[in-house]
Amino acid sequence: MTFNDAIPIDTIRYNEQGLVPAIAQDYLDGTVLMMAWMSRESLQKTLETGEAWYWSRSRGELWHKGATSGHIQKVKAMRYDCDSDALLMTVEQVGDIACHTGERSCFHQIEQQKKAPPADTLSGVFEVICQRRDHRVEGSYTRTLLEGGDNKILKKIGEEAAEVVMACKDDDSSAIASEVADLFYHTLVALAYHHVDIKDVYRKLQDRKR
Amino acid sequence: MTFNDAIPIDTIRYNEQGLVPAIAQDYLDGTVLMMAWMSRESLQKTLETGEAWYWSRSRGELWHKGATSGHIQKVKAMRYDCDSDALLMTVEQVGDIACHTGERSCFHQIEQQKKAPPADTLSGVFEVICQRRDHRVEGSYTRTLLEGGDNKILKKIGEEAAEVVMACKDDDSSAIASEVADLFYHTLVALAYHHVDIKDVYRKLQDRKR
Repeated sequence: MTFNDAIPIDTIRYNEQGLVPAIAQDYLDGTVLMMAWMSRESLQKTLETGEAWYWSRSRGELWHKGATSGHIQKVKAMRYDCDSDALLMTVEQVGDIACHTGERSCFHQIEQQKKAPPADTLSGVFEVICQRRDHRVEGSYTRTLLEGGDNKILKKIGEEAAEVVMACKDDDSSAIASEVADLFYHTLVALAYHHVDIKDVYRKLQDRKR
Repeated sequence: MTFNDAIPIDTIRYNEQGLVPAIAQDYLDGTVLMMAWMSRESLQKTLETGEAWYWSRSRGELWHKGATSGHIQKVKAMRYDCDSDALLMTVEQVGDIACHTGERSCFHQIEQQKKAPPADTLSGVFEVICQRRDHRVEGSYTRTLLEGGDNKILKKIGEEAAEVVMACKDDDSSAIASEVADLFYHTLVALAYHHVDIKDVYRKLQDRKR
């Protein structure tokens, strides 16, 4: 994919070093993967090739992200901000690893510990459900569902779907939001139980958007 | 909310101007709202107050985001990157407007036109569905559903829920991902039909995470 005209290169305001900050964000769940710097030339390369090129300030050279690790970033869209001095790229991160430490995102540090970067709400809930699946927690409703297996989980999906139907028939906005939240949650439990990643669902939805 | 120890202020690497870039990301759908700069002092203020404080480079002063517009940012979490030279904040954006232009996100420019910033997959699909609702498009399946109203949409939700159940019973990973994608899509159509925002669903889910 190339999108030569997506960003007006001459409109972008580079700093005294001729650089502009560029944020790379995952196209599936909105995770911020990294922030690095682009020169005019690396921005041009990015637009021409459809893959992210940065400027390495430590090495003082053009940097084709993933050239050695294989973890290249395929750029799906690019936006610039109201001041024209920052860029935001929507990327498909090959290997799902952006950080040189092997972590998914460079933004994984919080209070000295490693922690997964924030993504959208559904992905966040899914992450908690997977933790409940993999680590015993007493008194967890999610855990009870998972231990009940398909018959317990799927019965709830049927029930929650019916409740969405009823809330819609009542045209009750708050009930609709609550019941859809319940349906989504129980569906995520089914995914976790079957070890299907929420990103696989997102990929199916993205494929259909085309 | 205060989280004084969340970021080790002295570990952060500030640039020659004593500043570090800080990205603000929406806690519900992962939208990148803005990127601005923080001084050591504004980082400290942010940690103390739980609201985002930046350093305004144009005015050369501490900047309590939203102090005049009311569009303050309540910080829910803060992370720093592998080089300790960039910050990522998860925020609740009051008024859902971060940009001084009145747009939700500062990153709304693409090819000279305004365009909504990227968020997670489900929010992106929901946006397309709402466009189909509000603007006539010939031959659109979504449009056909919406014109059929509750009875058509809700019948599909029942159907897709049953298909999720069957795919799980078959333990077929690819079918599970597909059927869940279908169930999610049709549920989003129901939300759009009833003018319930997907963010209201996300809020319900976030409330339960606590």
